[in-house]
Amino acid sequence: MAVALRKATYTYGNIAGQGGFTISIPSERHIHYADYFGMVSGKNTDKFAASGLTPGRSTLVNAPYIEKFPFVLECKLLQKIEIGLHTQFIGEILDIKAEAEVLDEKGRLDIEKVQPFFFAPEANTDYGVGKLMGEAFSIGRDVPKKP
Amino acid sequence: MAVALRKATYTYGNIAGQGGFTISIPSERHIHYADYFGMVSGKNTDKFAASGLTPGRSTLVNAPYIEKFPFVLECKLLQKIEIGLHTQFIGEILDIKAEAEVLDEKGRLDIEKVQPFFFAPEANTDYGVGKLMGEAFSIGRDVPKKP
Repeated sequence: MAVALRKATYTYGNIAGQGGFTISIPSERHIHYADYFGMVSGKNTDKFAASGLTPGRSTLVNAPYIEKFPFVLECKLLQKIEIGLHTQFIGEILDIKAEAEVLDEKGRLDIEKVQPFFFAPEANTDYGVGKLMGEAFSIGRDVPKKP
Repeated sequence: MAVALRKATYTYGNIAGQGGFTISIPSERHIHYADYFGMVSGKNTDKFAASGLTPGRSTLVNAPYIEKFPFVLECKLLQKIEIGLHTQFIGEILDIKAEAEVLDEKGRLDIEKVQPFFFAPEANTDYGVGKLMGEAFSIGRDVPKKP
């Protein structure tokens, strides 16, 4: 698991100092919380108090996670890579916590239940997950031209 | 731009040996080509010949790209990081090539026109981009609880 941050961020100091980090994945219905967390810095604001969200406390790394979000990764810092403006932190995933409601019948994470979203920086917008395109390593089966 | 690969892959040797790589982003309509490219190794198969796709030749790095795909990044290798099973190659983007048809009226890449897709490894499936959720650094404006 990797995250890249500028040195000026509050999170940079936390990850470098604590040797670990957590990743809390929000669902579409949590988008306003996730966006708010990106709008303010923990340097000046207690974001948990301000948003009314509750911090969970990892027993594996010294970092909080967001209890309300359905999917959490707890990571031990392995490497810290300088890349120009950003520093990339690479972590080993020590544990994954998922709400039962985002798992499929086989106990696997179901992206259609997690309903994560992602940032499109070009237009400064967020998008949800779209339609199922098909099974990987299978859709391409018929591509090779027959001799 | 970063990509992570196992040492056993043919691409690993190419990137390490040439000091650069290209990334060709397919649209949804190209998914069968993209899947095929992941199903076979360049060690045994000329994937361009087998698929009927045409290689473009970067003038900036010694690597081909896929002419049919709408969006191409050409990257110079900056760092090679060992992470357990995978090696991460970090590249500096030297140029971006995009078809005019995937740009918006301001000349910015429009993700709704590119129509990329992504891999959900848990269920071994591919998904398209979903609905526009809203403007980033704005949706969260009303989150802080008023005192």
